[in-house]
Amino acid sequence: MKLSYFYVAADVPDGIIPESSVVIDVLRATTTIAWALENGADSVQVFADVDELKNQAKTFDSKEKILVGERGGKKLDGFDLGNSPLGVSSESVKGKRVFMSTTNGTRSLHRVRESKSLYTMALPNRKAIAERLKSDNPKEVWIVGSGWEGSYSLEDSLAAGALASLLMDQLESVQIVNDELMASIALWKNWENDVEGCLRIASHGQRLAGIGNHDDDFACCASLDNLSVIPKQIEMGVLRSN
Amino acid sequence: MKLSYFYVAADVPDGIIPESSVVIDVLRATTTIAWALENGADSVQVFADVDELKNQAKTFDSKEKILVGERGGKKLDGFDLGNSPLGVSSESVKGKRVFMSTTNGTRSLHRVRESKSLYTMALPNRKAIAERLKSDNPKEVWIVGSGWEGSYSLEDSLAAGALASLLMDQLESVQIVNDELMASIALWKNWENDVEGCLRIASHGQRLAGIGNHDDDFACCASLDNLSVIPKQIEMGVLRSN
Repeated sequence: MKLSYFYVAADVPDGIIPESSVVIDVLRATTTIAWALENGADSVQVFADVDELKNQAKTFDSKEKILVGERGGKKLDGFDLGNSPLGVSSESVKGKRVFMSTTNGTRSLHRVRESKSLYTMALPNRKAIAERLKSDNPKEVWIVGSGWEGSYSLEDSLAAGALASLLMDQLESVQIVNDELMASIALWKNWENDVEGCLRIASHGQRLAGIGNHDDDFACCASLDNLSVIPKQIEMGVLRSN
Repeated sequence: MKLSYFYVAADVPDGIIPESSVVIDVLRATTTIAWALENGADSVQVFADVDELKNQAKTFDSKEKILVGERGGKKLDGFDLGNSPLGVSSESVKGKRVFMSTTNGTRSLHRVRESKSLYTMALPNRKAIAERLKSDNPKEVWIVGSGWEGSYSLEDSLAAGALASLLMDQLESVQIVNDELMASIALWKNWENDVEGCLRIASHGQRLAGIGNHDDDFACCASLDNLSVIPKQIEMGVLRSN
């Protein structure tokens, strides 16, 4: 199994359709996706554009949907919840389509939308995704970070390194294809005993802390291997536990 | 002293002129620049374009110049030496202008050419550059990797982390500004006891090994703090020991 990691959507090679892709947005989109599906949401649909989200959401009955999104730490107008993984409780999301506004994560999902298998991963469901990859056994997996406005992010790379490290421990056939993933494995080795510390020094972590107390979000996003949910793309931009 | 690291030239922000910049191309341009100047070259001028190099070199008397460049492991036609740091011996370069063909390094040097102070660094002169930065004491330093054809490189990031780690150990005022440099510090911590091993697993290291035996080049490029030379830009694209 050949593993590559691309820091952001723009780094993903053109003109090749990957067999298997894993999109990561630790702070906080893919953590929130994991928790929403774990808590019984029917599915999560991601949008970079708020108006497009609102238009799509109109086609759903109000009992069958919930709108999730924020800007600058504040819930978006007309939305039900902010972007915190703590918000998507069972009471809020059970049986519903979650319409989620998330710029960076959507860009990366869109970039590898044609993958035969497309999963989203965060730290809580790292092991679950690793197990699924072992079972799928694709020849090649592209791991794609989301970053922040096109720039590298520490926390997504940490999670990419965490996934690769686990697969390397468990599968002899794993090959690390690019420098980006080698660097991310070193990042994981350096921080694996203080995952939350890494999230907090990351520039996006500092940005979150700067707009209010996000202690519970940090703890939630830094939790490792505590969810068994496997979010998989079932149609363009829509993820379901699978 | 605020330190930022940009993986490749394209990541460097537009429209700002940095006070101080350090350009890194471990395999092998900035290692060869360091050795050429250490061995008494008058100066090194870098070129991305071979024809431009040849045109510029014409203005120099044959005794005052030496042409350095290779493609695919072979010396370029009409050139005196390949790109190895082992080639730029005192006998070859003393008192001469070294005209060096190097695509990736030139791009990064060009990107920060307006810096008030612009240095090139490799692992052998890491400590020398750190000492100079401490003495210059700029408010902000941009470290710029060269990568490979626009992509991230492990070995340049390792060296960026090595420089930042040393400065952090010695200066209380150091602030690590971006995620790229935080990740590179973790990379350095992971590999500092096997620098050559890191260079060899890097994709550019593998590329070098694939075109012939480069054992001596690896050993030379992986040497740490054994040169006191400080290559500084004296005019656009021209470096002199300073």
